[in-house]
Amino acid sequence: MTLFTGLSAFPLTPADDEGQLKPELLQHFLERIVAAGADSIGLLGSTGGYAYLTPEARKRTLQAAVESVARRTPLIVGVGALTTEAAEDLARDAGKAGADGLLLAPMSYQPLTDEEVFRHFEAVAAAGGLPLCIYNNPGTTRFTFSPELIARLAGLPNVVAVKMPLAADGDHAGEMQRLRAMTPEGFAIGYSGDWGAKDALLAGGACWYSVAAGLLPDPALALTRAARNGDAAEAARIDAAFAPLWALFREVGSFRVMFAIAESLGFGGITPPRPILPLEPALRERVEAALSRLP
Amino acid sequence: MTLFTGLSAFPLTPADDEGQLKPELLQHFLERIVAAGADSIGLLGSTGGYAYLTPEARKRTLQAAVESVARRTPLIVGVGALTTEAAEDLARDAGKAGADGLLLAPMSYQPLTDEEVFRHFEAVAAAGGLPLCIYNNPGTTRFTFSPELIARLAGLPNVVAVKMPLAADGDHAGEMQRLRAMTPEGFAIGYSGDWGAKDALLAGGACWYSVAAGLLPDPALALTRAARNGDAAEAARIDAAFAPLWALFREVGSFRVMFAIAESLGFGGITPPRPILPLEPALRERVEAALSRLP
Repeated sequence: MTLFTGLSAFPLTPADDEGQLKPELLQHFLERIVAAGADSIGLLGSTGGYAYLTPEARKRTLQAAVESVARRTPLIVGVGALTTEAAEDLARDAGKAGADGLLLAPMSYQPLTDEEVFRHFEAVAAAGGLPLCIYNNPGTTRFTFSPELIARLAGLPNVVAVKMPLAADGDHAGEMQRLRAMTPEGFAIGYSGDWGAKDALLAGGACWYSVAAGLLPDPALALTRAARNGDAAEAARIDAAFAPLWALFREVGSFRVMFAIAESLGFGGITPPRPILPLEPALRERVEAALSRLP
Repeated sequence: MTLFTGLSAFPLTPADDEGQLKPELLQHFLERIVAAGADSIGLLGSTGGYAYLTPEARKRTLQAAVESVARRTPLIVGVGALTTEAAEDLARDAGKAGADGLLLAPMSYQPLTDEEVFRHFEAVAAAGGLPLCIYNNPGTTRFTFSPELIARLAGLPNVVAVKMPLAADGDHAGEMQRLRAMTPEGFAIGYSGDWGAKDALLAGGACWYSVAAGLLPDPALALTRAARNGDAAEAARIDAAFAPLWALFREVGSFRVMFAIAESLGFGGITPPRPILPLEPALRERVEAALSRLP
């Protein structure tokens, strides 16, 4: 198994009202993921709220994670930033601190051109010196990768994988076939968008970059294993149990729902970074009900 | 004239290759704006690259500007940030440092709800304690304000103005009529989008938040004065001279073009913050040609 394969679980970065990291709680989240046997940890991804953290907070989070995980599970670290300089610094820091791989999203303020994104990835991948996954997440970055740009990036040193959003037409097999024809042998094409993970994995997706697995690694791993073994019936059974949760993810955003899941699981006292608000009580009750459906 | 009225000129924040502020050049840009007689300066707006600067760099920029402008022209300062906490800090700092007003854009990573944006503005407007303009710029923030949300925000203490994007249907008069009916007396409705400024001003827009005026304050001011005096023919004449520049703004983004304008005007040695790239030579030649058309 290569680094960007299987189930990658994305933990929250737990912080208190003042925005201070709660390292013990982070380590507890990570321990659950390691104990479940997830294939990797997607630290400081969108779910880990990387976009809202200072470089110093990101460094502290990574250090706490490296100590806690102690190389039992590969650690993939989000190094996206609005400037190339900041992302280069984060990539260098991640390598020194003990990350195994990098995730890079083209965060943007001014909409970016393809050439700008290419040069950005070229610089950050070189600075990091670690295997890097293209974090293709137009819902947050507002940048849309063309297949041609992914192919061009896949030719760069260190760029070995892409995390795709779900195919708009649902044809993940067709999309992967086209991308495989344009990218080097071994370039790993995985998917995020938990509600479509079953389909993407059954279609041959290399990896499920999973929000839910950050707090619910056991059922997410069961779904991943079933789908990757081609057991469509078992994968569908587990996916159906997740359905009420997927509905909430789509309705109000998985990031907000994850904080409510944490609360339901007894990990209180953490709040989303403002301006993101905690869910209203009625939605928190729906989260509670959705969790009760899981195996 | 109230603060958010007339011509607000948005300077670049000039930095060298290493991202270090060039304070003398900033002060030179500001001097040109003050000398032209612009009604306000929109410091650290989108054109000022606020989204790419550290809080420390933003503080240094504001200090240099306050010293240089010395209250000759009102200073409006962009305090947008991805977290409410960071924006509150910037708003407090701006007040202490000597800003006259604030501009607040709802920067986003996770797409924001209306309620989240409302609470964000409420907190930052309270922290700043200065007149605040809603920076409605969906092209960069990817947040779209409904008229209802603008009306709700206009009821908050300190929130006294909005900077609107050009009306999609071109009907600025109709849009302003609807917004005026929903907002308190004196709430100032201005526009950005330089290529439509003439029309927005002729339709009664209170303010032109102008990118071009950051480097070309004289012709921008002439256009503003003509339009606000209802001299449609003179406004159209000046606007026509700007047309080749407006075409470039729309084609490759005004932020990139402004760096090329600076170079053409002899202010070399400043570069956009990576990942933003300088324009290719062919486009820089078009910028040069566009400038030669101006009065």
